[in-house]
Amino acid sequence: MDIALLGGTGDIGEGLALRWAYDTSHTVIIGSRDAERAENKAEEYVTELDSRGVESSVAGYENGEAAARADVVVCAVPAYHLTDTIEAVAADLDAGDVLVSPAVGMKRDEDGMHYNKPGTGSVTALAADAAPDDVSVVGAFHNLAADRLANLDAELDVDTLVVGDDEDAVDTVSELADEVEGLRAVSAGGIANAAEVEAVTPLVINIAMNNEGMHDVGVKFH
Amino acid sequence: MDIALLGGTGDIGEGLALRWAYDTSHTVIIGSRDAERAENKAEEYVTELDSRGVESSVAGYENGEAAARADVVVCAVPAYHLTDTIEAVAADLDAGDVLVSPAVGMKRDEDGMHYNKPGTGSVTALAADAAPDDVSVVGAFHNLAADRLANLDAELDVDTLVVGDDEDAVDTVSELADEVEGLRAVSAGGIANAAEVEAVTPLVINIAMNNEGMHDVGVKFH
Repeated sequence: MDIALLGGTGDIGEGLALRWAYDTSHTVIIGSRDAERAENKAEEYVTELDSRGVESSVAGYENGEAAARADVVVCAVPAYHLTDTIEAVAADLDAGDVLVSPAVGMKRDEDGMHYNKPGTGSVTALAADAAPDDVSVVGAFHNLAADRLANLDAELDVDTLVVGDDEDAVDTVSELADEVEGLRAVSAGGIANAAEVEAVTPLVINIAMNNEGMHDVGVKFH
Repeated sequence: MDIALLGGTGDIGEGLALRWAYDTSHTVIIGSRDAERAENKAEEYVTELDSRGVESSVAGYENGEAAARADVVVCAVPAYHLTDTIEAVAADLDAGDVLVSPAVGMKRDEDGMHYNKPGTGSVTALAADAAPDDVSVVGAFHNLAADRLANLDAELDVDTLVVGDDEDAVDTVSELADEVEGLRAVSAGGIANAAEVEAVTPLVINIAMNNEGMHDVGVKFH
């Protein structure tokens, strides 16, 4: 499978790129608004993987080109760039492609981090509204600690919650999650249930801030 | 320590009563609007504990009397009864008592369970508004599966998130949580951070509904 990571030069994009390149044989494509930046980052990931004895073929492209080459497109961009990123690549998506949204709207104040629920009900719903009708949107990978994900020496042993209205698309993304060593997909329902999933991200940040030794904390349901 | 469980005849109240009576030497007081109902339930818990060789002194009283006898008062009532329950026992609370709110506002529709955020920002904030000024309010025990909690044969191995603005009160409640075998208190900040904590409850219900073998699911942060 060909997976594009738009915003694949950022924290969470880097982690997912490295993990998929390390643990699976899928083709990982790094997207950025700046093609050169994407190429440089892809090269960096290849070097990192090479140093661990893993031959990988991570490549970098401008977002539209990256989206065009992929079956699954992860929009690893901040929530405030989600709509314009999806609109910018809409023409490059094929019918049946799966668009994955890990973005969460948050606001920080003196009390900590808070979930900033958009008028659409969730950021995942925002992505679904912005995506072409023949592209299925799935929310996933919201609550993964970026540093832990990007550190291939770190054991994950965490869950990622997956929401979506298209069962096949949810299955595809859940399998991609399960293929990462130590990561498990847990279904949390449809896009109407995305707000409770996205709210876990500010929660884990608050937990990391309020408890010693819980930096980079993850969540496990059992 | 003397712990009252207002609504201690309900699901979550039963679980907390049994666990504290089983795992600690604290005095557990069951409260209900109906004193006789409280007495009957207390007797039921004593019988259950007795059958497990644990001599306990669980007693039942009308809510006001239960609150008057306790240092820590857990309002294990539905969110829509929280304010009137607190107001009904306000005169029975002593300065320095700790009021614990495990209540969560939720609404169910065809898509599943959703967090129903009150205008105050959270149900815990609602409890803080209703409580006397000299009583500290702590949010805790929201996301525990009632059946698993009340089944003393079931291993917990789960976390409960604790929020509060009074550090001493948070410590008191966290210790009470930690004294239950398999339960761990994790701080999630102040009352301003309660919404993200309360939203975990509809999330775990949705997870239970959408995944086989995850009935009575709990959450663990690590």
